[in-house]
Amino acid sequence: MSLDPDIEMPDSVAAVSHAILRVRGEAAVAADDDVAVEEPLEIRLGGVSLAITMRTPGDDDELIAGFLHSERVIASVDDLDVMAPYRSADADRRAGNVVNVLLKGNLPVARERLRRNFIASSSCGLCGKASIEAIRADWPAVRSDLVVSAALVHRLARAMGPAQATFERTGGLHAAGLFDAAGELIVLREDIGRHNAVDKVIGHMLLARRFPLDRHILMVSGRASFEIMQKALAARIPIVTAVSAPSSLAVEMAMATGMTLVGFVRPGGFNIYAGAARIAQLAALV
Amino acid sequence: MSLDPDIEMPDSVAAVSHAILRVRGEAAVAADDDVAVEEPLEIRLGGVSLAITMRTPGDDDELIAGFLHSERVIASVDDLDVMAPYRSADADRRAGNVVNVLLKGNLPVARERLRRNFIASSSCGLCGKASIEAIRADWPAVRSDLVVSAALVHRLARAMGPAQATFERTGGLHAAGLFDAAGELIVLREDIGRHNAVDKVIGHMLLARRFPLDRHILMVSGRASFEIMQKALAARIPIVTAVSAPSSLAVEMAMATGMTLVGFVRPGGFNIYAGAARIAQLAALV
Repeated sequence: MSLDPDIEMPDSVAAVSHAILRVRGEAAVAADDDVAVEEPLEIRLGGVSLAITMRTPGDDDELIAGFLHSERVIASVDDLDVMAPYRSADADRRAGNVVNVLLKGNLPVARERLRRNFIASSSCGLCGKASIEAIRADWPAVRSDLVVSAALVHRLARAMGPAQATFERTGGLHAAGLFDAAGELIVLREDIGRHNAVDKVIGHMLLARRFPLDRHILMVSGRASFEIMQKALAARIPIVTAVSAPSSLAVEMAMATGMTLVGFVRPGGFNIYAGAARIAQLAALV
Repeated sequence: MSLDPDIEMPDSVAAVSHAILRVRGEAAVAADDDVAVEEPLEIRLGGVSLAITMRTPGDDDELIAGFLHSERVIASVDDLDVMAPYRSADADRRAGNVVNVLLKGNLPVARERLRRNFIASSSCGLCGKASIEAIRADWPAVRSDLVVSAALVHRLARAMGPAQATFERTGGLHAAGLFDAAGELIVLREDIGRHNAVDKVIGHMLLARRFPLDRHILMVSGRASFEIMQKALAARIPIVTAVSAPSSLAVEMAMATGMTLVGFVRPGGFNIYAGAARIAQLAALV
Protein backbone atom coordinates (compact mmCIF):
# COMPACT_ATOMS: atom_id res chain seq x y z
CA MET A 1 0.00 0.00 0.00
CA SER A 2 1.52 3.31 -1.02
CA LEU A 3 1.10 6.52 0.88
CA ASP A 4 -1.04 9.36 -0.35
CA PRO A 5 1.34 12.32 -0.80
CA ASP A 6 -1.34 14.52 0.78
CA ILE A 7 -0.95 12.83 4.16
CA GLU A 8 1.03 15.00 6.54
CA MET A 9 4.05 13.02 7.63
CA PRO A 10 6.38 13.80 10.57
CA ASP A 11 9.10 16.38 9.99
CA SER A 12 12.00 14.27 11.20
CA VAL A 13 13.09 10.68 11.45
CA ALA A 14 12.98 9.78 15.09
CA ALA A 15 15.40 6.92 15.49
CA VAL A 16 19.10 6.41 16.18
CA SER A 17 21.24 3.39 15.47
CA HIS A 18 22.85 1.41 18.31
CA ALA A 19 25.32 -1.48 18.17
CA ILE A 20 23.65 -4.49 19.81
CA LEU A 21 24.01 -8.23 20.20
CA ARG A 22 21.21 -10.17 18.56
CA VAL A 23 20.71 -13.46 20.41
CA ARG A 24 18.99 -16.45 18.82
CA GLY A 25 18.99 -19.49 21.04
CA GLU A 26 22.51 -19.53 22.48
CA ALA A 27 24.21 -17.74 19.57
CA ALA A 28 24.89 -14.02 19.45
CA VAL A 29 25.78 -11.86 16.49
CA ALA A 30 26.75 -8.20 16.51
CA ALA A 31 24.21 -6.00 14.70
CA ASP A 32 22.95 -2.46 14.39
CA ASP A 33 19.47 -1.71 15.67
CA ASP A 34 17.33 1.39 15.22
CA VAL A 35 16.08 2.72 18.53
CA ALA A 36 13.29 5.27 18.96
CA VAL A 37 14.58 8.60 20.25
CA GLU A 38 13.42 9.75 23.69
CA GLU A 39 14.35 13.24 24.93
CA PRO A 40 12.80 15.56 27.50
CA LEU A 41 10.93 18.68 26.37
CA GLU A 42 10.35 21.52 28.78
CA ILE A 43 7.53 23.88 27.88
CA ARG A 44 7.81 27.36 29.38
CA LEU A 45 5.08 29.97 29.32
CA GLY A 46 6.43 33.51 29.42
CA GLY A 47 9.71 32.11 30.73
CA VAL A 48 8.11 30.10 33.55
CA SER A 49 8.33 26.32 33.48
CA LEU A 50 4.93 24.79 32.79
CA ALA A 51 5.49 21.12 31.98
CA ILE A 52 8.17 18.59 31.13
CA THR A 53 7.40 15.62 28.97
CA MET A 54 9.56 12.81 27.64
CA ARG A 55 8.96 12.92 23.90
CA THR A 56 10.36 11.96 20.54
CA PRO A 57 11.83 15.13 19.01
CA GLY A 58 10.12 16.45 15.88
CA ASP A 59 6.97 18.48 15.34
CA ASP A 60 7.55 20.07 18.73
CA ASP A 61 5.50 23.11 17.71
CA GLU A 62 2.54 20.81 17.12
CA LEU A 63 3.12 18.99 20.40
CA ILE A 64 3.16 22.27 22.32
CA ALA A 65 0.12 23.70 20.52
CA GLY A 66 -1.85 20.51 21.11
CA PHE A 67 -0.82 20.33 24.74
CA LEU A 68 -1.75 23.97 25.38
CA HIS A 69 -5.11 23.39 23.71
CA SER A 70 -5.87 20.30 25.80
CA GLU A 71 -4.98 22.28 28.94
CA ARG A 72 -7.27 25.13 27.84
CA VAL A 73 -4.41 27.65 27.71
CA ILE A 74 -5.19 28.44 24.08
CA ALA A 75 -8.38 28.08 22.06
CA SER A 76 -6.95 28.76 18.61
CA VAL A 77 -3.74 29.57 16.78
CA ASP A 78 -4.60 33.25 17.20
CA ASP A 79 -3.81 32.96 20.91
CA LEU A 80 -0.19 32.05 20.13
CA ASP A 81 2.37 34.78 19.67
CA VAL A 82 5.87 33.27 19.70
CA MET A 83 7.14 29.71 20.22
CA ALA A 84 10.92 29.73 20.39
CA PRO A 85 13.53 27.18 21.52
CA TYR A 86 15.99 28.48 24.09
CA ARG A 87 19.54 28.82 22.90
CA SER A 88 22.35 27.79 25.19
CA ALA A 89 26.12 28.10 25.36
CA ASP A 90 26.08 24.32 25.35
CA ALA A 91 23.99 24.37 22.21
CA ASP A 92 24.77 20.82 21.26
CA ARG A 93 23.06 19.53 24.35
CA ARG A 94 20.09 21.71 25.06
CA ALA A 95 19.10 22.78 21.57
CA GLY A 96 15.41 22.35 21.08
CA ASN A 97 14.64 20.69 24.40
CA VAL A 98 13.44 23.87 26.12
CA VAL A 99 10.83 25.94 24.31
CA ASN A 100 9.38 29.25 25.47
CA VAL A 101 5.85 30.23 24.49
CA LEU A 102 4.48 33.74 24.47
CA LEU A 103 0.75 34.25 24.16
CA LYS A 104 -1.07 37.15 22.57
CA GLY A 105 -3.27 39.24 24.79
CA ASN A 106 -3.38 38.90 28.51
CA LEU A 107 -0.79 36.34 29.58
CA PRO A 108 -1.51 36.64 33.32
CA VAL A 109 -5.12 35.72 32.61
CA ALA A 110 -4.06 32.62 30.73
CA ARG A 111 -1.66 31.67 33.48
CA GLU A 112 -4.33 32.13 36.11
CA ARG A 113 -6.70 29.96 34.09
CA LEU A 114 -4.01 27.31 33.87
CA ARG A 115 -3.33 27.45 37.59
CA ARG A 116 -7.02 26.93 38.27
CA ASN A 117 -7.04 23.97 35.91
CA PHE A 118 -4.21 22.29 37.74
CA ILE A 119 -5.85 22.97 41.07
CA ALA A 120 -9.11 21.58 39.75
CA SER A 121 -7.50 18.43 38.51
CA SER A 122 -5.72 17.83 41.80
CA SER A 123 -8.57 18.64 44.18
CA CYS A 124 -11.72 17.50 42.44
CA GLY A 125 -12.09 14.47 44.63
CA LEU A 126 -9.91 12.36 42.42
CA CYS A 127 -12.15 9.46 41.89
CA GLY A 128 -13.06 8.65 38.34
CA LYS A 129 -16.55 10.07 38.46
CA ALA A 130 -15.51 13.32 40.07
CA SER A 131 -12.74 13.76 37.51
CA ILE A 132 -15.19 13.23 34.69
CA GLU A 133 -17.55 15.76 36.23
CA ALA A 134 -14.73 18.30 36.45
CA ILE A 135 -13.91 17.71 32.79
CA ARG A 136 -17.55 18.02 31.80
CA ALA A 137 -17.74 21.37 33.52
CA ASP A 138 -14.88 22.55 31.30
CA TRP A 139 -16.07 20.91 28.11
CA PRO A 140 -19.71 20.34 27.26
CA ALA A 141 -20.66 17.05 25.63
CA VAL A 142 -19.59 16.52 22.03
CA ARG A 143 -22.32 17.38 19.54
CA SER A 144 -21.72 15.88 16.13
CA ASP A 145 -24.03 14.12 13.72
CA LEU A 146 -21.10 12.25 12.21
CA VAL A 147 -22.05 8.68 11.37
CA VAL A 148 -19.63 6.22 9.78
CA SER A 149 -20.00 2.68 8.48
CA ALA A 150 -18.48 -0.38 10.08
CA ALA A 151 -16.57 -0.89 6.83
CA LEU A 152 -14.92 2.51 7.35
CA VAL A 153 -13.83 1.56 10.87
CA HIS A 154 -12.36 -1.68 9.54
CA ARG A 155 -10.31 0.38 7.05
CA LEU A 156 -8.76 2.67 9.69
CA ALA A 157 -6.28 0.18 11.09
CA ARG A 158 -5.18 -0.84 7.62
CA ALA A 159 -4.52 2.82 6.79
CA MET A 160 -2.42 3.44 9.91
CA GLY A 161 0.11 0.65 9.46
CA PRO A 162 1.97 1.78 6.34
CA ALA A 163 2.27 5.33 7.67
CA GLN A 164 4.05 4.26 10.87
CA ALA A 165 7.54 4.63 9.47
CA THR A 166 9.51 4.79 12.69
CA PHE A 167 7.51 2.10 14.47
CA GLU A 168 8.34 -0.17 11.59
CA ARG A 169 12.05 0.36 12.23
CA THR A 170 12.12 0.54 16.03
CA GLY A 171 8.99 -1.11 17.42
CA GLY A 172 9.22 1.66 19.98
CA LEU A 173 6.65 4.32 19.16
CA HIS A 174 2.99 5.02 19.68
CA ALA A 175 1.07 6.48 16.75
CA ALA A 176 -2.01 8.66 16.48
CA GLY A 177 -3.86 9.36 13.25
CA LEU A 178 -6.68 11.72 12.38
CA PHE A 179 -9.15 10.69 9.68
CA ASP A 180 -11.89 12.68 7.95
CA ALA A 181 -15.52 11.58 7.66
CA ALA A 182 -14.70 9.62 4.50
CA GLY A 183 -12.03 7.63 6.35
CA GLU A 184 -9.09 9.35 4.68
CA LEU A 185 -5.96 9.72 6.84
CA ILE A 186 -5.17 13.44 7.20
CA VAL A 187 -2.24 13.45 9.62
CA LEU A 188 -0.26 10.80 11.48
CA ARG A 189 2.28 11.35 14.24
CA GLU A 190 4.49 8.96 16.19
CA ASP A 191 5.96 9.50 19.63
CA ILE A 192 7.43 7.56 22.51
CA GLY A 193 4.48 8.89 24.57
CA ARG A 194 0.97 8.05 23.41
CA HIS A 195 -0.43 11.35 24.72
CA ASN A 196 2.29 13.25 22.83
CA ALA A 197 1.30 11.60 19.54
CA VAL A 198 -2.28 12.78 20.12
CA ASP A 199 -1.13 16.29 21.08
CA LYS A 200 0.90 16.47 17.86
CA VAL A 201 -2.04 15.44 15.70
CA ILE A 202 -4.39 17.93 17.35
CA GLY A 203 -1.69 20.62 17.39
CA HIS A 204 -1.09 20.07 13.68
CA MET A 205 -4.74 20.76 12.89
CA LEU A 206 -4.82 23.75 15.22
CA LEU A 207 -1.71 25.33 13.67
CA ALA A 208 -3.10 24.65 10.18
CA ARG A 209 -6.37 26.38 11.17
CA ARG A 210 -8.28 23.20 10.40
CA PHE A 211 -10.41 23.29 13.54
CA PRO A 212 -13.13 22.31 14.42
CA LEU A 213 -12.60 18.55 14.35
CA ASP A 214 -16.21 17.62 14.99
CA ARG A 215 -16.43 15.50 11.85
CA HIS A 216 -13.17 13.64 12.39
CA ILE A 217 -12.02 10.31 13.80
CA LEU A 218 -8.99 9.88 16.05
CA MET A 219 -7.18 6.55 16.04
CA VAL A 220 -4.44 5.52 18.44
CA SER A 221 -2.11 2.58 17.93
CA GLY A 222 -2.28 1.37 21.52
CA ARG A 223 -4.67 1.71 24.43
CA ALA A 224 -7.28 4.41 25.05
CA SER A 225 -6.82 6.03 28.46
CA PHE A 226 -8.60 8.85 30.26
CA GLU A 227 -5.94 11.30 29.11
CA ILE A 228 -6.49 10.45 25.42
CA MET A 229 -10.25 10.92 25.80
CA GLN A 230 -9.72 14.25 27.54
CA LYS A 231 -7.61 15.56 24.65
CA ALA A 232 -10.10 14.33 22.06
CA LEU A 233 -12.97 15.91 23.98
CA ALA A 234 -11.14 19.24 24.15
CA ALA A 235 -10.71 19.09 20.36
CA ARG A 236 -14.41 18.11 19.94
CA ILE A 237 -13.52 14.87 18.13
CA PRO A 238 -16.66 12.66 18.27
CA ILE A 239 -15.13 9.23 17.52
CA VAL A 240 -12.03 7.72 19.14
CA THR A 241 -10.76 4.33 17.99
CA ALA A 242 -7.93 2.28 19.47
CA VAL A 243 -6.04 -0.78 18.28
CA SER A 244 -5.92 -2.04 21.85
CA ALA A 245 -8.01 -1.88 25.03
CA PRO A 246 -9.69 1.14 26.62
CA SER A 247 -9.49 1.82 30.35
CA SER A 248 -12.50 1.94 32.65
CA LEU A 249 -12.23 5.71 32.97
CA ALA A 250 -11.99 6.15 29.19
CA VAL A 251 -15.25 4.21 28.78
CA GLU A 252 -17.00 6.17 31.52
CA MET A 253 -15.81 9.47 30.08
CA ALA A 254 -17.02 8.58 26.59
CA MET A 255 -20.43 7.66 27.97
CA ALA A 256 -20.62 10.87 30.02
CA THR A 257 -19.65 13.21 27.20
CA GLY A 258 -21.43 11.78 24.18
CA MET A 259 -18.30 10.43 22.51
CA THR A 260 -18.02 7.19 20.55
CA LEU A 261 -15.27 4.86 21.78
CA VAL A 262 -14.18 1.86 19.74
CA GLY A 263 -11.48 -0.53 20.91
CA PHE A 264 -9.60 -3.60 19.69
CA VAL A 265 -9.75 -2.52 16.05
CA ARG A 266 -8.21 -5.60 14.50
CA PRO A 267 -8.56 -7.31 11.12
CA GLY A 268 -12.20 -8.33 10.81
CA GLY A 269 -13.55 -6.91 14.04
CA PHE A 270 -13.78 -4.25 16.74
CA ASN A 271 -15.64 -3.53 19.98
CA ILE A 272 -17.90 -0.52 20.58
CA TYR A 273 -17.70 0.67 24.20
CA ALA A 274 -19.80 3.85 23.94
CA GLY A 275 -21.79 5.88 21.41
CA ALA A 276 -22.74 3.01 19.07
CA ALA A 277 -25.27 5.21 17.26
CA ARG A 278 -22.41 6.79 15.28
CA ILE A 279 -21.58 3.44 13.65
CA ALA A 280 -24.19 3.31 10.91
CA GLN A 281 -24.95 -0.13 9.59
CA LEU A 282 -24.91 -1.60 13.06
CA ALA A 283 -27.50 0.66 14.57
CA ALA A 284 -30.20 -1.26 12.77
CA LEU A 285 -28.96 -4.61 13.92
CA VAL A 286 -29.01 -3.86 17.62
CA MET B 1 2.17 -23.82 33.19
CA SER B 2 0.88 -23.55 36.72
CA LEU B 3 1.74 -20.78 39.10
CA ASP B 4 4.05 -21.26 42.00
CA PRO B 5 2.01 -20.47 45.14
CA ASP B 6 5.03 -18.61 46.47
CA ILE B 7 4.77 -15.95 43.79
CA GLU B 8 3.31 -12.76 45.21
CA MET B 9 0.18 -11.97 43.24
CA PRO B 10 -1.71 -8.65 43.19
CA ASP B 11 -4.11 -8.01 46.08
CA SER B 12 -7.14 -7.18 43.97
CA VAL B 13 -8.64 -7.96 40.62
CA ALA B 14 -8.35 -4.82 38.60
CA ALA B 15 -11.08 -5.04 36.01
CA VAL B 16 -14.73 -4.06 35.65
CA SER B 17 -17.31 -5.40 33.24
CA HIS B 18 -18.91 -3.15 30.59
CA ALA B 19 -21.73 -3.87 28.15
CA ILE B 20 -20.32 -3.53 24.64
CA LEU B 21 -21.14 -4.31 21.03
CA ARG B 22 -18.79 -6.82 19.48
CA VAL B 23 -18.56 -6.22 15.72
CA ARG B 24 -17.39 -8.86 13.28
CA GLY B 25 -17.60 -7.76 9.68
CA GLU B 26 -20.94 -5.95 9.51
CA ALA B 27 -22.64 -7.87 12.31
CA ALA B 28 -22.84 -6.72 15.92
CA VAL B 29 -23.70 -8.70 19.01
CA ALA B 30 -24.17 -7.41 22.54
CA ALA B 31 -21.57 -8.74 24.94
CA ASP B 32 -19.88 -8.06 28.26
CA ASP B 33 -16.23 -7.09 28.21
CA ASP B 34 -13.74 -6.80 31.07
CA VAL B 35 -12.03 -3.42 31.12
CA ALA B 36 -8.89 -2.58 33.11
CA VAL B 37 -9.61 -0.14 35.93
CA GLU B 38 -7.99 3.31 35.75
CA GLU B 39 -8.34 5.70 38.69
CA PRO B 40 -6.27 8.66 39.90
CA LEU B 41 -4.13 8.31 43.01
CA GLU B 42 -2.95 11.42 44.83
CA ILE B 43 0.07 10.94 47.07
CA ARG B 44 0.39 13.51 49.86
CA LEU B 45 3.41 13.93 52.08
CA GLY B 46 2.56 15.32 55.49
CA GLY B 47 -0.74 16.54 54.06
CA VAL B 48 0.84 18.34 51.09
CA SER B 49 0.11 17.09 47.58
CA LEU B 50 3.20 15.51 46.07
CA ALA B 51 2.09 13.66 42.93
CA ILE B 52 -0.96 12.40 41.10
CA THR B 53 -0.79 9.33 38.95
CA MET B 54 -3.42 7.46 36.96
CA ARG B 55 -3.16 3.93 38.24
CA THR B 56 -4.98 0.64 38.58
CA PRO B 57 -6.15 0.39 42.20
CA GLY B 58 -4.61 -2.35 44.31
CA ASP B 59 -1.27 -2.62 46.12
CA ASP B 60 -1.31 1.16 46.54
CA ASP B 61 1.02 0.90 49.54
CA GLU B 62 3.59 -0.77 47.30
CA LEU B 63 3.07 1.79 44.55
CA ILE B 64 3.64 4.64 46.99
CA ALA B 65 6.65 3.02 48.66
CA GLY B 66 8.24 2.29 45.28
CA PHE B 67 7.53 5.80 44.00
CA LEU B 68 9.00 7.41 47.11
CA HIS B 69 12.08 5.23 46.80
CA SER B 70 12.63 6.11 43.15
CA GLU B 71 12.30 9.81 44.04
CA ARG B 72 14.83 9.40 46.87
CA VAL B 73 12.33 10.44 49.55
CA ILE B 74 12.86 7.18 51.42
CA ALA B 75 15.78 4.76 51.45
CA SER B 76 14.14 1.92 53.37
CA VAL B 77 10.93 0.89 55.04
CA ASP B 78 12.28 2.34 58.28
CA ASP B 79 11.80 5.84 56.85
CA LEU B 80 8.05 5.27 56.60
CA ASP B 81 5.84 6.06 59.56
CA VAL B 82 2.19 6.03 58.45
CA MET B 83 0.52 5.56 55.08
CA ALA B 84 -3.21 6.24 55.37
CA PRO B 85 -6.01 6.82 52.86
CA TYR B 86 -8.05 9.97 53.45
CA ARG B 87 -11.60 9.43 54.50
CA SER B 88 -14.27 11.64 53.03
CA ALA B 89 -17.93 12.44 53.65
CA ASP B 90 -18.40 11.24 50.10
CA ALA B 91 -16.64 8.01 50.97
CA ASP B 92 -17.97 6.12 48.01
CA ARG B 93 -16.12 8.39 45.63
CA ARG B 94 -12.83 9.33 47.19
CA ALA B 95 -12.10 6.26 49.24
CA GLY B 96 -8.57 5.14 48.63
CA ASN B 97 -7.70 7.61 45.91
CA VAL B 98 -5.94 10.07 48.21
CA VAL B 99 -3.24 8.68 50.51
CA ASN B 100 -1.28 10.64 53.08
CA VAL B 101 2.25 9.58 53.99
CA LEU B 102 4.07 10.50 57.18
CA LEU B 103 7.78 9.88 57.42
CA LYS B 104 9.81 9.08 60.47
CA GLY B 105 12.44 11.59 61.48
CA ASN B 106 12.79 14.97 59.94
CA LEU B 107 9.99 15.46 57.44
CA PRO B 108 11.05 18.97 56.40
CA VAL B 109 14.45 17.58 55.42
CA ALA B 110 12.83 14.94 53.22
CA ARG B 111 10.59 17.51 51.63
CA GLU B 112 13.52 19.81 50.94
CA ARG B 113 15.42 16.93 49.37
CA LEU B 114 12.41 16.18 47.20
CA ARG B 115 12.06 19.81 46.17
CA ARG B 116 15.69 19.84 45.13
CA ASN B 117 15.16 16.67 43.12
CA PHE B 118 12.29 18.18 41.20
CA ILE B 119 14.27 21.34 40.58
CA ALA B 120 17.22 19.26 39.43
CA SER B 121 15.13 17.30 37.01
CA SER B 122 13.64 20.43 35.50
CA SER B 123 16.77 22.53 35.22
CA CYS B 124 19.60 20.13 34.48
CA GLY B 125 19.78 21.13 30.86
CA LEU B 126 17.16 18.66 29.81
CA CYS B 127 18.94 16.91 27.05
CA GLY B 128 19.37 13.22 27.37
CA LYS B 129 23.03 13.32 28.35
CA ALA B 130 22.56 16.00 30.97
CA SER B 131 19.64 14.11 32.49
CA ILE B 132 21.71 10.97 32.70
CA GLU B 133 24.53 12.91 34.35
CA ALA B 134 22.10 14.31 36.90
CA ILE B 135 20.86 10.80 37.65
CA ARG B 136 24.40 9.49 37.93
CA ALA B 137 25.20 12.14 40.48
CA ASP B 138 22.31 10.82 42.58
CA TRP B 139 22.97 7.14 42.00
CA PRO B 140 26.42 5.67 41.41
CA ALA B 141 26.78 2.96 38.77
CA VAL B 142 25.31 -0.44 39.56
CA ARG B 143 27.87 -2.86 40.96
CA SER B 144 26.78 -6.46 40.72
CA ASP B 145 28.62 -9.58 39.65
CA LEU B 146 25.33 -11.23 38.68
CA VAL B 147 25.73 -13.27 35.50
CA VAL B 148 22.86 -15.23 33.95
CA SER B 149 22.63 -17.62 31.03
CA ALA B 150 20.89 -16.91 27.75
CA ALA B 151 18.64 -19.84 28.55
CA LEU B 152 17.50 -18.07 31.72
CA VAL B 153 16.61 -14.92 29.75
CA HIS B 154 14.61 -17.03 27.30
CA ARG B 155 12.63 -18.42 30.24
CA LEU B 156 11.66 -15.02 31.68
CA ALA B 157 9.02 -14.16 29.10
CA ARG B 158 7.46 -17.60 29.41
CA ALA B 159 7.22 -17.12 33.17
CA MET B 160 5.51 -13.71 32.93
CA GLY B 161 2.63 -14.71 30.67
CA PRO B 162 0.67 -17.04 32.94
CA ALA B 163 0.94 -14.59 35.85
CA GLN B 164 -0.67 -11.70 33.97
CA ALA B 165 -4.19 -12.44 35.09
CA THR B 166 -5.80 -9.11 34.36
CA PHE B 167 -4.02 -8.55 31.05
CA GLU B 168 -5.41 -11.87 29.96
CA ARG B 169 -8.94 -10.61 30.60
CA THR B 170 -8.63 -6.98 29.50
CA GLY B 171 -5.64 -6.60 27.20
CA GLY B 172 -5.26 -3.32 28.99
CA LEU B 173 -2.46 -3.58 31.51
CA HIS B 174 1.30 -3.35 31.67
CA ALA B 175 3.11 -5.88 33.82
CA ALA B 176 6.41 -5.84 35.67
CA GLY B 177 8.03 -8.90 37.23
CA LEU B 178 11.03 -9.33 39.48
CA PHE B 179 13.09 -12.51 39.18
CA ASP B 180 15.88 -13.86 41.35
CA ALA B 181 19.30 -14.95 40.09
CA ALA B 182 17.93 -18.44 39.36
CA GLY B 183 15.21 -17.00 37.13
CA GLU B 184 12.39 -17.64 39.59
CA LEU B 185 9.56 -15.08 39.51
CA ILE B 186 9.29 -13.45 42.94
CA VAL B 187 6.64 -10.80 42.43
CA LEU B 188 4.50 -9.65 39.52
CA ARG B 189 2.33 -6.53 39.34
CA GLU B 190 0.02 -5.18 36.66
CA ASP B 191 -1.04 -1.58 36.16
CA ILE B 192 -2.48 0.70 33.51
CA GLY B 193 0.79 2.67 33.79
CA ARG B 194 4.04 0.86 33.07
CA HIS B 195 5.97 2.94 35.62
CA ASN B 196 3.36 2.14 38.27
CA ALA B 197 3.81 -1.60 37.72
CA VAL B 198 7.55 -1.16 38.31
CA ASP B 199 6.97 1.02 41.39
CA LYS B 200 4.69 -1.68 42.82
CA VAL B 201 7.27 -4.43 42.30
CA ILE B 202 10.06 -2.39 43.86
CA GLY B 203 7.77 -1.14 46.64
CA HIS B 204 6.75 -4.72 47.40
CA MET B 205 10.36 -5.73 47.97
CA LEU B 206 11.05 -2.59 49.99
CA LEU B 207 8.05 -3.13 52.29
CA ALA B 208 9.01 -6.81 52.68
CA ARG B 209 12.55 -5.76 53.67
CA ARG B 210 13.94 -7.75 50.75
CA PHE B 211 16.35 -5.05 49.60
CA PRO B 212 18.98 -4.89 48.13
CA LEU B 213 17.97 -6.08 44.67
CA ASP B 214 21.46 -6.25 43.24
CA ARG B 215 21.12 -9.93 42.29
CA HIS B 216 17.70 -9.57 40.66
CA ILE B 217 16.27 -9.15 37.18
CA LEU B 218 13.42 -6.78 36.33
CA MET B 219 11.20 -7.61 33.37
CA VAL B 220 8.56 -5.32 31.85
CA SER B 221 5.84 -6.42 29.46
CA GLY B 222 6.19 -3.45 27.13
CA ARG B 223 8.88 -0.95 26.26
CA ALA B 224 11.85 0.15 28.35
CA SER B 225 11.92 3.93 28.78
CA PHE B 226 14.24 6.27 30.65
CA GLU B 227 11.82 6.32 33.60
CA ILE B 228 11.90 2.52 33.96
CA MET B 229 15.71 2.52 33.94
CA GLN B 230 15.79 5.29 36.54
CA LYS B 231 13.60 3.28 38.91
CA ALA B 232 15.67 0.12 38.39
CA LEU B 233 18.89 2.06 38.98
CA ALA B 234 17.54 3.52 42.21
CA ALA B 235 16.73 -0.02 43.37
CA ARG B 236 20.20 -1.21 42.24
CA ILE B 237 18.75 -3.83 39.88
CA PRO B 238 21.55 -4.82 37.47
CA ILE B 239 19.53 -6.41 34.65
CA VAL B 240 16.42 -4.97 32.98
CA THR B 241 14.62 -6.96 30.29
CA ALA B 242 11.69 -5.86 28.15
CA VAL B 243 9.31 -7.69 25.84
CA SER B 244 9.35 -4.72 23.49
CA ALA B 245 11.76 -1.99 22.39
CA PRO B 246 13.96 0.25 24.54
CA SER B 247 14.18 4.00 23.94
CA SER B 248 17.40 5.80 23.03
CA LEU B 249 17.65 7.33 26.48
CA ALA B 250 17.12 3.95 28.17
CA VAL B 251 20.05 2.52 26.19
CA GLU B 252 22.29 5.50 26.94
CA MET B 253 21.41 5.36 30.61
CA ALA B 254 22.14 1.63 30.84
CA MET B 255 25.54 2.18 29.21
CA ALA B 256 26.33 5.11 31.51
CA THR B 257 25.41 3.34 34.75
CA GLY B 258 26.69 -0.19 34.23
CA MET B 259 23.28 -1.77 33.81
CA THR B 260 22.39 -4.61 31.45
CA LEU B 261 19.49 -3.83 29.11
CA VAL B 262 17.83 -6.56 27.08
CA GLY B 263 14.95 -5.86 24.68
CA PHE B 264 12.57 -7.72 22.39
CA VAL B 265 12.53 -10.81 24.60
CA ARG B 266 10.46 -13.06 22.36
CA PRO B 267 10.27 -16.83 21.86
CA GLY B 268 13.69 -17.91 20.65
CA GLY B 269 15.51 -14.61 20.78
CA PHE B 270 16.34 -11.26 22.36
CA ASN B 271 18.58 -8.24 21.80
CA ILE B 272 21.26 -7.02 24.22
CA TYR B 273 21.56 -3.23 24.16
CA ALA B 274 24.03 -2.73 27.02
CA GLY B 275 26.03 -4.72 29.56
CA ALA B 276 26.37 -7.95 27.56
CA ALA B 277 28.99 -9.27 30.00
CA ARG B 278 26.18 -10.25 32.39
CA ILE B 279 24.77 -12.74 29.87
CA ALA B 280 27.09 -15.69 30.41
CA GLN B 281 27.25 -18.14 27.56
CA LEU B 282 27.35 -15.37 25.00
CA ALA B 283 30.37 -13.57 26.35
CA ALA B 284 32.63 -16.22 24.84
CA LEU B 285 31.03 -16.00 21.44
CA VAL B 286 31.53 -12.30 20.87
